[in-house]
Amino acid sequence: MQIKAVFHIDEIEKWKLLIGNVQNLIKVLPAKSFEIVIVANSVAVKEYLIKNSIFSNELKELSSSGIKICACKNALNSLKINQDEIFEFITIVPVGVKEIIEKQLEGFAYIKP
Amino acid sequence: MQIKAVFHIDEIEKWKLLIGNVQNLIKVLPAKSFEIVIVANSVAVKEYLIKNSIFSNELKELSSSGIKICACKNALNSLKINQDEIFEFITIVPVGVKEIIEKQLEGFAYIKP
Amino acid sequence: MQIKAVFHIDEIEKWKLLIGNVQNLIKVLPAKSFEIVIVANSVAVKEYLIKNSIFSNELKELSSSGIKICACKNALNSLKINQDEIFEFITIVPVGVKEIIEKQLEGFAYIKP
Repeated sequence: MQIKAVFHIDEIEKWKLLIGNVQNLIKVLPAKSFEIVIVANSVAVKEYLIKNSIFSNELKELSSSGIKICACKNALNSLKINQDEIFEFITIVPVGVKEIIEKQLEGFAYIKP
Repeated sequence: MQIKAVFHIDEIEKWKLLIGNVQNLIKVLPAKSFEIVIVANSVAVKEYLIKNSIFSNELKELSSSGIKICACKNALNSLKINQDEIFEFITIVPVGVKEIIEKQLEGFAYIKP
Repeated sequence: MQIKAVFHIDEIEKWKLLIGNVQNLIKVLPAKSFEIVIVANSVAVKEYLIKNSIFSNELKELSSSGIKICACKNALNSLKINQDEIFEFITIVPVGVKEIIEKQLEGFAYIKP
């Protein structure tokens, strides 16, 4: 069974747990065998700020492993965060929850750490 | 792809986030093109109290947009809330989590803000 | 429609809510008509400790009702909890989130109380 999952985060304090979850998951999966998407909305997008990020190395590694890491554009806008302030490997999606819903309707599982 | 989603809330403090999520979502969807259900259980049903509600206008508007807004009957009972104390546009379901599960088994995505 | 659901918990404070949710759900379902799995990861696995458990009776009853109750092995390891310290009716799964994803891909609904 191919692992397809979307991880949802909207609280800044949950990043450590979410990253640990994803790291433990891909450790037991063959490389490139999975489709995993992380979608951050609300204040959780602040972790993507180049100048403030706590888990920049971990996020970079997850991105390199083929995991798509997304930010909700509405959340960036309401926090007045510009695209050039966040990591270049972040995908900006117009509406975070719409992305999460569409992934599930395409057959992805949902995890909210 | 038709958007079909159930939003779950069981903490009173999450209403602001949930309502913002749903408002941002339907803003980008054609009217009446979606099926969205909100299910509150546990203490989150207290937001439906006519005398205490903080987001009564927002809830009314979401209901007018065709969103089904539900309360778990078990939660109302354990908080001693009568049906005549909550908004008339709220749908009471016998068991909140059963409603959420059945929606997913019918093909709805799940979001827990 | 057969009820198939996986309940996810990763915070120790959410056990009371989760157990109440599951109890209310199975009360309205015919015995043995459902497939329900509880998966605990992160610090939530501490509730399975024989010497510290708060809801041992409730967990035992849920297990007797046919509900599969799981612990993430990674979480047990990082908390230095041995298998002989937790209830014998707990199923240890190698990676909690992998179990949750696979269940969803097999058609189970997801609930995060």
